[in-house]
Amino acid sequence: MKHPADWMIGKNADNAVVITSRIRLARNLRDVSFPGWAKKTERVEVMNQIRPVVEDLRWMKKAFSQELSELDSMQKQVLVERHLISREQAARAAGSAAVIDRGQRLSLMINEEDHLRMQSIRAGLHLREAHDLLNEVDESLEQELEFAFDRQLGYLTACPTNLGTGMRASAMLHLPALVLSDQIGQVLQAVSKIGLAVRGLFGEGTESLGHLFQISNQSTLGESEDAIINRLERVINQVANHERNARLKMMEEEKGMISDKIGRAYGILSYAQLFDSIEAFAHISLIRLGADLGFFPEETMHMCDSLMMEIQPAHLQMIAGTELEPEKRDIIRAEILRDRLQSLDAPVNNNTNNQAEGDGPDGDHPNE
Amino acid sequence: MKHPADWMIGKNADNAVVITSRIRLARNLRDVSFPGWAKKTERVEVMNQIRPVVEDLRWMKKAFSQELSELDSMQKQVLVERHLISREQAARAAGSAAVIDRGQRLSLMINEEDHLRMQSIRAGLHLREAHDLLNEVDESLEQELEFAFDRQLGYLTACPTNLGTGMRASAMLHLPALVLSDQIGQVLQAVSKIGLAVRGLFGEGTESLGHLFQISNQSTLGESEDAIINRLERVINQVANHERNARLKMMEEEKGMISDKIGRAYGILSYAQLFDSIEAFAHISLIRLGADLGFFPEETMHMCDSLMMEIQPAHLQMIAGTELEPEKRDIIRAEILRDRLQSLDAPVNNNTNNQAEGDGPDGDHPNE
Repeated sequence: MKHPADWMIGKNADNAVVITSRIRLARNLRDVSFPGWAKKTERVEVMNQIRPVVEDLRWMKKAFSQELSELDSMQKQVLVERHLISREQAARAAGSAAVIDRGQRLSLMINEEDHLRMQSIRAGLHLREAHDLLNEVDESLEQELEFAFDRQLGYLTACPTNLGTGMRASAMLHLPALVLSDQIGQVLQAVSKIGLAVRGLFGEGTESLGHLFQISNQSTLGESEDAIINRLERVINQVANHERNARLKMMEEEKGMISDKIGRAYGILSYAQLFDSIEAFAHISLIRLGADLGFFPEETMHMCDSLMMEIQPAHLQMIAGTELEPEKRDIIRAEILRDRLQSLDAPVNNNTNNQAEGDGPDGDHPNE
Repeated sequence: MKHPADWMIGKNADNAVVITSRIRLARNLRDVSFPGWAKKTERVEVMNQIRPVVEDLRWMKKAFSQELSELDSMQKQVLVERHLISREQAARAAGSAAVIDRGQRLSLMINEEDHLRMQSIRAGLHLREAHDLLNEVDESLEQELEFAFDRQLGYLTACPTNLGTGMRASAMLHLPALVLSDQIGQVLQAVSKIGLAVRGLFGEGTESLGHLFQISNQSTLGESEDAIINRLERVINQVANHERNARLKMMEEEKGMISDKIGRAYGILSYAQLFDSIEAFAHISLIRLGADLGFFPEETMHMCDSLMMEIQPAHLQMIAGTELEPEKRDIIRAEILRDRLQSLDAPVNNNTNNQAEGDGPDGDHPNE
């Protein structure tokens, strides 16, 4: 668990715009109080009933299985930063557990808001594959557990917004060009209008960091899982196309501006001595964009995805092996960033009069 | 005239805080209309009377002597950016001329606001030397020209604020630490209260750029030149001491913060592709501060002073040999800065855990 999963750093996936796809299903045991209502002993009973079944799943060989009350807050925060457990679950007391497969693609949370939440994440836009996996998991579990299901309402959930399919499908998109070209408001408004939710990096109520936006379905009722996923994929593809077009247009019409922004991000990351995570995300986002636009080698994108994970507070502390005050974190965050940027050549050729000196395919001569 | 003068780049002077000292004297011919009131023919007559006398001064061998109407606006602007003529004079029509010695320390403007304005500039805090020179110049001129002088009022000038001594003494101070530590308002208020004026880089009505502030005497009447200069030097020394103390305190108590700011300035100057002059000044100012604090070799200060001259709009165009749109200037300005920064090693050692790797005397380890 010390290293991030492949999906976190976008290996082997075309994820220049759609970084990850995620599906989660909410399930509850029949005739048992929901976790928020249940007494502690009931919660522990639920955990003891569900956990062995989950651990027995064929995907869970050598899985990470952990009662959350046994983790300290930093360890829990690491799981939150990896999107493997929710913030809500991290705050929960006794009776809560997480079972995560070795590849960190499948995560089952016991006694979060619901008795069971299962989640699958993939790099790139692969909602269907993620859903197929969860479907299999769900079917396996149903052979051992009896879930609360109503013929009219579908799966019963603690919060009515999850009623029905119990499914939330979402994708994390990197939309720097839409932000830089001031089109983001318009695009996100259009997405909201057709009933999808747009959120920041950590879901509901969080701000967008590093030009990352999460698009997900709002309704779980009255539509099949397939229909929801189809609709979502269509919209995500449209948004991703907007982003790609905005990137191309920027390179054609405002190459100087974008070279400048990427150069500045590179310069600041290379030499600043203090970074809070919000600012760091903003600069890493531009380096990631630069990698897609040919200013850096393509594998730089993976470095950026990895950095976005590593510079988060709990990850920093895990790496340092100790709790750290925010001020100290800002210093270490800057050290990590400077260190990692050293492996990266400057984005632009300073001798801008000599086209022949460019070593990138395209994006290294800003002054035309 | 293509190269900046020594005083502009602070060679051979302790000018870490006080960059330059400047004295100017205003003189008018007796019984002739002031330039703003005079007809064109009168102005030309005045010029033709004064100019040969000025050119004959022993300091003016091989001087630059130029009627301003013969210069294009870019050439005039270069002289303004070097503080060799005033903005007002650059805007004047026929009958205006400037005579500037080869060292660009002595500049005589004919038909500016007054018939004659003589100015002397030095690097560092050397108001008295500058004044001594002007005194000699003044005496030499008085052997050939009859200046309007009233026993009660002293030298008569077009604007009553210059009446009396006709002298304006000023110094340009670099006060980044007072700005960064939020003490600047207080200090400048105190300076204003005792009757001195504080202004930006180009005098009256201009903003402070690059943490540069000009302090000058307000009153020219009722006090001798010596008394004015004494008072001004005392105050300037006090302000400079405040600045030095603020720098020391910052290095002791907030080395991380200041290392960060200097590192960022270095990173941005090294990799940005577009700079307006206001932003460029701000970053160069921090590099200049860094040079004084040991983050860079000391001669970096001269590089900064030189850059502050070179990146101004008219200088940029002079270097390019052609007029340039602001957008194009921003590109060339960034090129010059990147190019010059290449000769400068990074301010801080990235490997902050290994003290032995530091090559600066002091300022290269921000993380304590």
